[in-house]
Parts: sequence; C-alpha cells; structure tokens
Amino acid sequence: MKEHLDAETVREWGRRYSNWGRWGQDDHRGTLNFITPARILEACALPRRGLVISCALPFDDKGPQTGLAGRHNPIHTMLADGGDALAGAQDFLPGGFRYADDSVTMPLQCGTQWNSLAHVFYDGKMYNDRDLCLVTSSGALANSIDRIKDGVVGRGVLLDMPRYLKLPWLDDGTRIRPEDLDACAEAFGVTVESGDIVLVRTGRMTRCLEQKSWAGYCGGGAPGLSVTCAGWIYTREVAAVATDTWGLEVIPNETPDCFQPLHMIALRNTGLLFGKIFQLDALANACAEDGNYAFLFTAPPLPITGAVGSPINPLAIK
Amino acid sequence: MKEHLDAETVREWGRRYSNWGRWGQDDHRGTLNFITPARILEACALPRRGLVISCALPFDDKGPQTGLAGRHNPIHTMLADGGDALAGAQDFLPGGFRYADDSVTMPLQCGTQWNSLAHVFYDGKMYNDRDLCLVTSSGALANSIDRIKDGVVGRGVLLDMPRYLKLPWLDDGTRIRPEDLDACAEAFGVTVESGDIVLVRTGRMTRCLEQKSWAGYCGGGAPGLSVTCAGWIYTREVAAVATDTWGLEVIPNETPDCFQPLHMIALRNTGLLFGKIFQLDALANACAEDGNYAFLFTAPPLPITGAVGSPINPLAIK
Amino acid sequence: MKEHLDAETVREWGRRYSNWGRWGQDDHRGTLNFITPARILEACALPRRGLVISCALPFDDKGPQTGLAGRHNPIHTMLADGGDALAGAQDFLPGGFRYADDSVTMPLQCGTQWNSLAHVFYDGKMYNDRDLCLVTSSGALANSIDRIKDGVVGRGVLLDMPRYLKLPWLDDGTRIRPEDLDACAEAFGVTVESGDIVLVRTGRMTRCLEQKSWAGYCGGGAPGLSVTCAGWIYTREVAAVATDTWGLEVIPNETPDCFQPLHMIALRNTGLLFGKIFQLDALANACAEDGNYAFLFTAPPLPITGAVGSPINPLAIK
Amino acid sequence: MKEHLDAETVREWGRRYSNWGRWGQDDHRGTLNFITPARILEACALPRRGLVISCALPFDDKGPQTGLAGRHNPIHTMLADGGDALAGAQDFLPGGFRYADDSVTMPLQCGTQWNSLAHVFYDGKMYNDRDLCLVTSSGALANSIDRIKDGVVGRGVLLDMPRYLKLPWLDDGTRIRPEDLDACAEAFGVTVESGDIVLVRTGRMTRCLEQKSWAGYCGGGAPGLSVTCAGWIYTREVAAVATDTWGLEVIPNETPDCFQPLHMIALRNTGLLFGKIFQLDALANACAEDGNYAFLFTAPPLPITGAVGSPINPLAIK
Repeated sequence: MKEHLDAETVREWGRRYSNWGRWGQDDHRGTLNFITPARILEACALPRRGLVISCALPFDDKGPQTGLAGRHNPIHTMLADGGDALAGAQDFLPGGFRYADDSVTMPLQCGTQWNSLAHVFYDGKMYNDRDLCLVTSSGALANSIDRIKDGVVGRGVLLDMPRYLKLPWLDDGTRIRPEDLDACAEAFGVTVESGDIVLVRTGRMTRCLEQKSWAGYCGGGAPGLSVTCAGWIYTREVAAVATDTWGLEVIPNETPDCFQPLHMIALRNTGLLFGKIFQLDALANACAEDGNYAFLFTAPPLPITGAVGSPINPLAIK
Repeated sequence: MKEHLDAETVREWGRRYSNWGRWGQDDHRGTLNFITPARILEACALPRRGLVISCALPFDDKGPQTGLAGRHNPIHTMLADGGDALAGAQDFLPGGFRYADDSVTMPLQCGTQWNSLAHVFYDGKMYNDRDLCLVTSSGALANSIDRIKDGVVGRGVLLDMPRYLKLPWLDDGTRIRPEDLDACAEAFGVTVESGDIVLVRTGRMTRCLEQKSWAGYCGGGAPGLSVTCAGWIYTREVAAVATDTWGLEVIPNETPDCFQPLHMIALRNTGLLFGKIFQLDALANACAEDGNYAFLFTAPPLPITGAVGSPINPLAIK
Repeated sequence: MKEHLDAETVREWGRRYSNWGRWGQDDHRGTLNFITPARILEACALPRRGLVISCALPFDDKGPQTGLAGRHNPIHTMLADGGDALAGAQDFLPGGFRYADDSVTMPLQCGTQWNSLAHVFYDGKMYNDRDLCLVTSSGALANSIDRIKDGVVGRGVLLDMPRYLKLPWLDDGTRIRPEDLDACAEAFGVTVESGDIVLVRTGRMTRCLEQKSWAGYCGGGAPGLSVTCAGWIYTREVAAVATDTWGLEVIPNETPDCFQPLHMIALRNTGLLFGKIFQLDALANACAEDGNYAFLFTAPPLPITGAVGSPINPLAIK
Repeated sequence: MKEHLDAETVREWGRRYSNWGRWGQDDHRGTLNFITPARILEACALPRRGLVISCALPFDDKGPQTGLAGRHNPIHTMLADGGDALAGAQDFLPGGFRYADDSVTMPLQCGTQWNSLAHVFYDGKMYNDRDLCLVTSSGALANSIDRIKDGVVGRGVLLDMPRYLKLPWLDDGTRIRPEDLDACAEAFGVTVESGDIVLVRTGRMTRCLEQKSWAGYCGGGAPGLSVTCAGWIYTREVAAVATDTWGLEVIPNETPDCFQPLHMIALRNTGLLFGKIFQLDALANACAEDGNYAFLFTAPPLPITGAVGSPINPLAIK
C-alpha cells in the first residue's frame, strides 16, 4: 500500500477492481456470478464426514449490539404460548390442541448477516452504476438481498488466522493482507479459487465470548482485512468474504480519509458479498480436527423484498 | 381411517407413533435425528445440474397473512438509506462512504417457515414429555428452533400432487393419503426413505398467485395431508414434511373433534419438523424438466433463542 | 375560490397565510403560540359539568389502517402475563407478586393523532423556512412533535356539521367552506376565536362504525375542509384543527394539481397543528345534550424525540 | 410498621385496604372513581398562571431502560422522510406535496407511564376479584388501560421531598412514610384530599440526569414510598400516585418476603393508579416559584385495547 490512501486513490482502486457491467446491466448478484453450476457441483462433492456446522451467533438480547447506528439486538415476543393454554385462552380449539407462536423485531444487520449490494455507496452510486436514489424508506429497488434468494451455495474455505499464527485471537488493529491470507491458506493446505466463499476467522468474537463482554465489538477496534485485499478479492474472483467481526475490515481503518475503504471498493465496485458477525469457532475446531479447510457451504438469505441485508444461519457441510 | 376420529383416538395414535425417548431424554431435534451423516453424504451426491432453487415466498407486505392469530405480514423499515445520504445526514462519515441499514418486524410464522417442536402441545405436554409450562412469554426453554441450528440439510423429495393428477391445483378439502403419496412418488420414480425431507406440493399457493388473492389461504379451506399420514410418516422415518399451504393438513380437518389432528400426533408425539408456506412452483418445474425428484436440500432456521419457529429460505440443489 | 387552483396559486396562498418568522426563527410551535396563558385560563373556566370525554379511537388491530403508505394498525404484544404466572415463570419473585407487561409497534399516524410541523413540506422546505434535509431516517431535527410537549391545552370548539345539517354524515367529497363553519358555529351559539382548537365532525367515522367497515376511510373519498379554509384559519388565528377523517381535507381534493393543498398551505406555511382520526361521536352527543360547544380541551402528544406525529387521547372537559 | 412484614401480613393489609366491590363488580377504574365531577370542576378552578408543564421524560433511545424484564427504550423509525423527497420517491404526489411519517416500537412501561389495574396480581387475582387468567398473550380482558380512557383529569398535588428536606435528592433506600408525606404537604401549604393525584418527587431522576447515567435506575436501589403508605392512600382516598422513580416503592423493599409489597396491596386491592418515571423537575421549579403545590392535572393514557399500561405525557396546568 502506498504511504497515504486518500479518497481519490480509493476511487481509483474502485475503478480498477470494478465488475460493473461484467454480468450485464441487469445484474444484481455481483461476485456470486462466479459460483457457476460446475463450481456448485464441485462443492457438493467435498463433504466426507456428513457433518453440518452452523456459523451463526444466537439471535437474542444477549447479542453484540450496543446501539450504534440504531442497531439493537433482536426483540423476541410471544403471540401465543403455554401460559395461554393454562389460562384457558385457547379452549376454543377442539380436542385439546394448543400452540405457541412468536414474533421478532430485529435490524437485519444486528447479528450474523449478509450485506446486500445496496448496503454501501459513494458518489451517488452503488454497485453496477445504480443511483442511491433507488434506496429509500420503501427499501431498495435494486441490489437488494432478495435478488440473491437462489443462493448462497458454494465452496467455503476457512482461513483461521489465529490458529495459523498460534494466537488465541488477533489484536485490534491487526491488518490481514493478501500475503497473510495466502500464507494461512497454504499452511492449511487449501487454495482460494474462483467462486469461493472465504471465511476469515480473526478470533475477535472468540475474545468477546471468552471475556463475556461485547464492549468495543460493534464499531470499535478490530482485526480485519486490509484494504489491500481489494485486488486479491478481485483477481481471485472470490464470491463472498465473511469474518467473525462487526465490520470485516481492520479498525482503525488504514486511512483517516475514508470510512471502511474496502467496503467502498469491494462492495460497491467489485460487487462482493460481505458477511459479518459469523461465529466461526466450531467450524475452526472441526477443520483443525480433520485437517480439511474446504467444505460445502450454504447460507441462504431471507428474501425480504427490498432489504439491504439479511440475518442468516450459515452452514458448513464437511 | 375409521368412521369417526375422536379426540381419544388421536391420543391413541399419538402413543402409537411416538418417538419420545427414542433419542434420549435430552433430545430436542426429533425426526431430524434420522438424518445421519451417511444420509447427508448421500444427499450431497445427488446434484447433477449445479442448480439452486429457492422455495421461499418473498417476505413483504404482500404476503399471505390477513390477521389470523395475530400474524401479520413482515414490516420492513429502513434505519438508514440513500435519501439520508442525499440529505447530508451521513456527511460525518469521511471519504464519501454512505450506507443503508434496515429492520424487520415479523411473526416467525408469517411466511415460509419451520415450526419448532415447541409449536404444538396437548394435555399439558409437548414433544419428548416436556411440560408446556416451558413455553412462556420469555420463549421456549425446550424444543425451540435454535436447538436445530446445525440443520436442516438432507435429501429432499418433491411430491408434486397436482402434476401427478394432471390438475392445476388440488381443490380445498382434498385429502392426501399415504397411498396418494406413494403413487405420486412411484409415478415420478422416487421413493421416500429414512431421513428424507418430503415436500408436498398441492398447488394451493399456485392458485393464490394465479388468482392474485390470498383470500382463504390462512386458516381457510385447503388441500393437505390426511391425518392417516401419521403412520406413514412414522414408519418411513421421514425427517420433515413441508407443503405450499398455510397449515399442511387438509382443511376442513377430517374430524370436528380435534383441530389439526396430524399436528397433534406428528409434531408432538413423532417429533416431526413441519414446514409451511413453501413456494414450490419453481422447484416443481425444474423437477419436471429433468425428471429428477430427489435433490440436496438445505433450509437452516435462524437460531433465535427460545423461538417456536423460524422464517426460512429453503434451497433445493439439483 | 378561483376556477382552477394550480400549484402556483397554492404557493401564493402559502405566502399569503404564512406565519414564518412570526414567533421568531427558533419557533417550532406554530399556531400553538396563539394559546396564550390568558386563553388557557379562560379555557379552564369553561367546564360546568365535570365531565371528561375521550376523543380517541381505540388503538388496536381493528383500527382503520389498510396498508396505505406503510401504515398498519397497532400491534400489541405481551412481555409478561397471567399465563406466565400460571406456568411458574414468575416464581422467582417472592411473596407471590406476579405481573404483566406489554409492548406496542405502531405507526404514529395510524390512529387518533397530531401531525407535527415536520409532517408536510414542499419546494424543499417545511414550517418556518426549515430545510426538509432536517427530516431523515434519524427523525426530525426541527418541528418535531416533542417540541410541543408542554401542550396541547386550550379552548376546544366542536363544529358538528352533520348535526347542523340534520344528516347522519356528510357525503364523500363534501367541501366544508369557511361560510359553512361559521354558519354551523352560529347555529350552535359559539364563535371561533384566537387560540381555539377547532374540532370539525363530518360523520365520516360514524359511517364507518355504523357500516362496520373501514373500506375507503384511509385515503379514499371523504368530506372535509375546503382549501378555502386556509384564509379563515389564518385570520381567525386558530391553534389547531382536527377532524374525524383520515386526512382532514375534502377528498377528492379540489384540484388535481396538488395533493392535499390545505396541508401545503396551512401546515407548512401557517404552522397549523393538524389532528386526524378523532372520534367525535361521544363529544357531539354531550354537546347536543348540554348545548355547549366550547370546552376545556387537552391532548398532550407523547414527546417521542424527533417524531413527526404522535398518537393521542384527546380529552374534552365540559 | 411491625418488625417483620411477612407475606401473610401483606395479604392482611390487602384485605384491610381493599376497594373490591366498592364501585360495583363491573368496575375497572378503581380509585379514579374518587375523582367526581365536583372534584374535576374544583381542579379546573386552580390555574392562576395559564402555564402548562409536561411531566414526561423524552421517549427515545437515551431513555432509562437497560433490558430488565424485556423492557427496552423506544425504537423510532421513519416510514417516509425528507430524504425520500430528495430521492424522488414521492414524485408521484402532484404539486410538490412531500411528507414524513414514522413508527415506534416501545414497551408500554419503558418511560413515563400509567400502570393499568391489570399490571399486578397475586394469589391468582387482580383488582376487583378478577382472575389473572384474563391476562394472556392477547392482552387483558379486564382492568386494562383503555378502561380509563375518559381520564385522567383532576387535582394534582406535588410533594417535593428533596426540596422539603433541603437535599438535591433522596438517597437510595430512603423510605417515604405517611408522616413524611404529611409533613412535606404541610410545609408547602397543601393538603391531600379525596380524588387527588399525588406526585411524589424523590430526586432519583434528577440524580440520573445530573450524573448522566441511568445505571441502577431500573430495578436498582431507589428512594420511594414505604409500604406503610398503603393505609394513608386508602384512607385519604387518593386517586393516583406517581413518582420520578422506576418502581414507586422504596428499593430495597422493606421486606424480603414480598416483591414490591405496596403494589400488591395498593394496586391489586385498593385499585390505585400507579404512575412511574415521571419527570417532575420542571414542575417542582414552577411550584417553588409560585408557592402553589396544587394544580389542574391531566394525563390521558393511550386507549390501547387490552393493554396493561400506557406511555403518557402528563400535564400540570398552573
């Protein structure tokens, strides 16, 4: 990286690593296009153990949110429950049938999540040359999460940085550069290929869970991808990147001139699917156990019409 | 089925088709236990086309809910959007970074969904001899949806009843009996095996979409599984059953003595995972196209702590 | 009114009836400023019967909303209830203390309501020359409802149009002009004075309740104030106007060139407080009973920070 | 107070201070019945200054809630805003009319509030011999807040304890006994009469605002009414009591045997309206200024059908 990454350089990188128009003007899927039918079939051939591992953090009021940007933890309420049955409120149902129903109020970015390609913009535009005027109080008319409802399925690759570095977790501010990703991949006998879904474990969440505190997790210091990964992501034709952090990128960002510069380049220009707040500890243990860092991966978003993200329960199948 | 299915007979069938204790007193997964690692590996070997098909209805205010039982369609609101960027509300973010965030308020049973094993009870108990007192305003302390977060992955089988019967859709009140399921399966060259996730298309949703009206869909008349399928489900060791209807069972129910008697038996006693409001039209077309009615199927629930259901985006991978 | 009320004429009237700057550049209260301490004391002297009458429609899922503009009826859920007590979920509380708590999700404009002065704008501005950029996803930084939290208290005057006209209700599309208001007031022995809160009953709600249908109530045809009332409101120095309709103005509007032209003029330029969906039937009966159409009136908004409206329970004290 | 207040004594006091049946078996208003028309007229005659003072804390995400009992601070979201207007999302509206709308999700007990008479129960009953089975996930079928929609209007009396004691605020755990209330009232030249709404300022909120921290406010230590006030409330025929604290009673409670024993007696048996989280600082200053501690008071609840409480904006009119 050059000495100082200014706002103009970020734009220059954006143009350099742009996929606008690559899959046509009607495209809303971005780098998910790299996951071809052939790649899906290869991914399906990976499992050896018949083991399924969730990469989702529980969605509840003990989640990581502390109010930043209006994001709060999920609010779960009951519409009907066992107490109602006891109180006789369901006696109108014949034969003793009784039931429970429930509801949730949750920001779509409050926990384990995909960002849609309408999540980030600059200079008035989002992915594929679309105007930000398309994203209003009524939702996103383009690049919304429901545009990728027939996904996300492909080959997942875990890059377990702290295990590679023999650390419990990476410190806040630790930059993960392309060469770090490559070295980690090589150490674990895996290579990142076109259409891969790359899961980068930093240990940031591990630390929160061990210390029983989410303080600083949302928006505070964090290890994460260096903005220099923009070229690596583009060239490798990565389909998606996800981490166990709030914002995927290293915080503090590598430049004071731009907030989340990798988002600016990779989400808006490259059309990359960003995953956040993934819980990768169980998967990391399973990979260490069997020595296999590639797996079938599936993480379908809820197709909420016009949404700019979705809570997900990502599954690794080994 | 005997002439009259009274409330006691439903209980008798419940005892007959019970899996309580089968996987231990600590089990919260029920028939998902039939999906063994071996079955998962077999399912992964099924895809031939590398094609992924969503079975979710869009989650939005045009959904099927009309207020029954307090269920409403999803309410999607924006926490930040392109308009804010235009208005200068995000100018504090350096480098021109702008973003959108959003939130949803939705009953967990409002659209394409899994019911957890805490969704239905009678005589004070739910699956695996657990007291309904465990399901209160604070959520379910047992049998909740987050207990199956490492799922659902397995072999899916589509039983496309209207296509088999050469009808656009089954009429309301049409009972689908075990022999109907078997005949349909045989006609399409597939057999239902232990651990399968059985998707039964009735065309009820097709009709609503064609007629552009959800009137009657929620709680009104519907084709659906006969209560006599309880034995078939139990014996075949089916892992899950889902339909394109509101309630899976035929409505009107086959007896006035019990509401949703198949739920009473199969959900509470057998521990079966019920799926509802699945959008199976695209999948049906794809199966008809390639003649292959078995596929890899994945439908991870959101692990909302203590929830009695979850919206899902089920994916069939062919 | 001239033959055709075009968009430019609306703006001209806006300038003519403007109160911008009248109470200083920092004013967020608009016509509520007409309610001086002296007027409040006069209003307090009005009651003769010691009778309090609510003018609120119940807030529940049987309300008038049918989805227009994203407005839905209130969703009321329980956080704790008697069933929980029965189920033992509150046994940790000593001495047998048990309790119930609840929550609501509601659009602030879904029922009986005040609009704040940030509710309507045109040509980039809202009341008192403020930019609409001040109203974003984070709420309104000016003219918000919490700015009038020390209100609304004053002299209320009911103008019961259908009773005056000896009709059960006014037909949809009926224009209520200044001369109609004056004639009605005179007939009932009351005059509208500076600082008054004028409640205009049209019978539109009466009709819905009698016909047991809200069809058309929200956004459909309605009797209501003519745009020509703009001058009357300005000259009389009315503090607030409220009706038993969805939108206060006559619908269809008197010109196709502007939507809700009276809002454009009176809310944005005059700074008038608009009240809607008032339930005025009980009050109308009480006024007819005692022949007294002026009363102490109080309708405090919830001071939700940055809100552009508030549900209210208006009280008339006779 | 006797040495030890055990659970049985609380019940004995409950019987002693019970108003069950006093206003008939159909009564849902409890002590509000003490506010007769004559008392309302007397209250209306009190104002001398024409001054209106809100006693509500702002409803926003800076509120006092920290998650106890599932209570969270209000969540305010926009359904339409100025940014939408800028983005062209409202261009379909003719003549340049533009608007903003909004929504709130809030526990009804999260801020300044009335508790309904369905808020507290013990031994299976709530006010007026009603079964707690009437309070389920569908709301309260009796004693709900909408039952008092034609209220609350009456004579308010402020008892400013810290000013009386020349303290900035009362310490946590400070018991306010009947004799303290009487002494304070006498010092400020006011007497508590039948039908009065008694506002007791403790300074607990003042302290939070001054220290810019709500830590401990909800459910933590607090000054408050002693359980011995139960008799005073009953005998004086108080219509309502409200404080600037979370729970009105002194915390720690005066006995470990019962949680909130004054609630048990006064809310359930006496049928007293409880008000909480009132912001009484501005009112206290105004009373000190003019030396008048009685005023017209109005605090209408939102008539949310079946609700067990309501956020309010209480107004004192001096």
